[in-house]
Amino acid sequence: MLDHTHLAARRSHVASANGHDDFPIQNLPFGLFSTDPEEPERMGIAIGDQILDLEGALEAGLLTGLAAEAIEDAQFIDGWADVLCRGREARVAIRHQVFDLLAEGSRLAGAVAEHLHASRDCTLHVPMRIGDYTDFYAGIVHAKTVGALMRPDNPLLPNYKHVPIGYHGRASSVVASGHPVRRPNGQRKPATETEPSFGPCRNLDYELELGIWIGEGNDLGEPIPIGEAGRHIGGFCLLNDWSARDIQGWEYQPLGPFLAKSFCSTISPWIVTPEAMAPFRHAQPPRPEGDPRPMDYLWDDADQAHGALDLELEVWLMTPGLRAKGLAPFRLSRGSSLGLYWTPAQLLAHHASGGCNLRTGDLLGTGTISVEGGMGSLLEITRGGKEPLALPSGETRRFLEDGDEVRLTARARREGFAGIGFGECRGAISPAPSAR
Amino acid sequence: MLDHTHLAARRSHVASANGHDDFPIQNLPFGLFSTDPEEPERMGIAIGDQILDLEGALEAGLLTGLAAEAIEDAQFIDGWADVLCRGREARVAIRHQVFDLLAEGSRLAGAVAEHLHASRDCTLHVPMRIGDYTDFYAGIVHAKTVGALMRPDNPLLPNYKHVPIGYHGRASSVVASGHPVRRPNGQRKPATETEPSFGPCRNLDYELELGIWIGEGNDLGEPIPIGEAGRHIGGFCLLNDWSARDIQGWEYQPLGPFLAKSFCSTISPWIVTPEAMAPFRHAQPPRPEGDPRPMDYLWDDADQAHGALDLELEVWLMTPGLRAKGLAPFRLSRGSSLGLYWTPAQLLAHHASGGCNLRTGDLLGTGTISVEGGMGSLLEITRGGKEPLALPSGETRRFLEDGDEVRLTARARREGFAGIGFGECRGAISPAPSAR
Repeated sequence: MLDHTHLAARRSHVASANGHDDFPIQNLPFGLFSTDPEEPERMGIAIGDQILDLEGALEAGLLTGLAAEAIEDAQFIDGWADVLCRGREARVAIRHQVFDLLAEGSRLAGAVAEHLHASRDCTLHVPMRIGDYTDFYAGIVHAKTVGALMRPDNPLLPNYKHVPIGYHGRASSVVASGHPVRRPNGQRKPATETEPSFGPCRNLDYELELGIWIGEGNDLGEPIPIGEAGRHIGGFCLLNDWSARDIQGWEYQPLGPFLAKSFCSTISPWIVTPEAMAPFRHAQPPRPEGDPRPMDYLWDDADQAHGALDLELEVWLMTPGLRAKGLAPFRLSRGSSLGLYWTPAQLLAHHASGGCNLRTGDLLGTGTISVEGGMGSLLEITRGGKEPLALPSGETRRFLEDGDEVRLTARARREGFAGIGFGECRGAISPAPSAR
Repeated sequence: MLDHTHLAARRSHVASANGHDDFPIQNLPFGLFSTDPEEPERMGIAIGDQILDLEGALEAGLLTGLAAEAIEDAQFIDGWADVLCRGREARVAIRHQVFDLLAEGSRLAGAVAEHLHASRDCTLHVPMRIGDYTDFYAGIVHAKTVGALMRPDNPLLPNYKHVPIGYHGRASSVVASGHPVRRPNGQRKPATETEPSFGPCRNLDYELELGIWIGEGNDLGEPIPIGEAGRHIGGFCLLNDWSARDIQGWEYQPLGPFLAKSFCSTISPWIVTPEAMAPFRHAQPPRPEGDPRPMDYLWDDADQAHGALDLELEVWLMTPGLRAKGLAPFRLSRGSSLGLYWTPAQLLAHHASGGCNLRTGDLLGTGTISVEGGMGSLLEITRGGKEPLALPSGETRRFLEDGDEVRLTARARREGFAGIGFGECRGAISPAPSAR
């Protein structure tokens, strides 16, 4: 393993990488890109404002050993899923070789340069075929705030502090950052109307979440012990779980959210590896006095000591009005991933505890991450639309309007270390199709 | 299209097909089988107690034109998904050629015989990679009966008759008939206990459902009009949505069932095509006086006139006690798929109404099908375990015990036509892994 402290000081011969918010040489996230819609997608690694074409690098003989073997086997089949199913060893082999190729002083800098593409000229794709997408509800401030809107006297249900609450989401409609988000039609019945009707969502919202990629899977019927859960994590991303609140309110009883969520979910397209995140792991914040201790199947000392993630999370809104007036995007919130009540390993161990098989490429969402003063959805910020938000453009927002664009960012920082980021998770709202 | 009346009288040179409950020559369902665990899975068609190896038949030159092309393109890639994404034309081409090959009087009967395998010597697999699995709740008697157990005064929620209620299920744990069903561990908190605990499910149940395979998909953001929904259906199967009732009761608020369902779902492994089911389509039974008319996006005259399915459904239980005494399986229920409140086309059109993209190989479950006198789960039969069922062996059952086997069957019958069936959907309960 690369020594973090030593690593923190290293620089890249790709000039834009040095001091880059998201993609310094310490990050090296995995992604799937194309330079031309007619060309097949290729496996790449982000470095500064460039993308290293790994398939080109392989062909040019720049990769050797396990790294070369993993990319070679993967490139025409299941891509990054074929790498991630091999577990840590293959990720690390690729990471170390690419680090050496991109580090300042690399003898191969000239050869490497031929396989770099400017990110702005590339399209990024969902990095792997997603088998199943599961969304949790681990942001306790979100659960309390939303619960209080619906049940003022009893915001948190009795199971919340015992069970990592989650539900199955829709895998087919997960898209990469930048894909348009079409406002859904659906059934809704506001309290002010006596009959339900079908038409464009009136309360369109975003949700700020982290995504966890499954690396190695487990067999059906074989739970994953909490102490082993960490090694099944293949990487992290940002996730915007777009939500149609009015549709959700009418459809969700008794089986949970369905079409209110399945019209689109946006992810940041780079798989940030557990190795890149290692310096930024953090102790799980202690539970408030009186909260139950997690059950044994969710408890692991090492996980409690450094299984949480310390990421600064921001949400930015750009509207047609802000753009017309030449104003900057408006920051809707700044929060932290330490607001999660469960660690990634706990979510994963719980998911598999009944024998459910997780597969490489499955995606777990943490649930909306809110902290006091930094709420992760408009539902919370505007208190269900009752307290509209005033923007510097003179516009107000209860929920999202057509033409609005939401951008999520995540940054990991630690004293004495180069920080890394996740890249953008961005989506703009386009009008609903005409409703029959 | 083959004329149904003419077709009904035809016989096969495969003797066991004639008069076969499930697989006479009028059915010809698509499946994926293997004869040896070491060999790759192959595409086949059931005929009586035999399976026709389509890949072998192709290699021997027995298929031509579009049928040959579809199997050739599919066999080494995505199998039946590659056929079903082509829509009706490819299904019909295969169906007609195989019909001619298997019909009494076929000149090629001798050559065909070389590609037949006894079903009892074959293993059947999940026929396609399932992208997303969605479970609906369209059995209104089930919804009322279960609702009454929880809310005696208000069994059906206000949305039920307007919205085809559904939720996302787990695709990874869908298995083919015969796969063992391991009792899950999980958190449960019965009303009689003050604290939740983790351990083997105590209230393990089955659910009798039909499955609908998606054939042609739709693009994200592009709803499927109800009038076109039928052509997106690629086939039908039986589905047992095994349910851990105690885990479900504790975990399901507020986001719906999760681990209570995701440990396993069993399907009958044969894709029964819409063409085989055509003679057995039925008018959707009229809604009771006072029920709302489905909204426009769910209403199509042709779908109302013949979009429902007329299938006789049965559930059989075999227990260790029945087996030890040499007794026959016990029939838990006999019902009908006309007990569904929504047609398959309505479920599909609703699913896509917000722009959610359905993909070839996606599976939709109808929800548990109960009719008066024929309940589709033990939860309903034993009234939540309060009225245990007495079996001829002297055993009683609140819920399923280890060693119990549940078998679902579906039969389509119509005066003057050869009936067809779906084959078995069978699973036996094995003990939970030791709980930490």
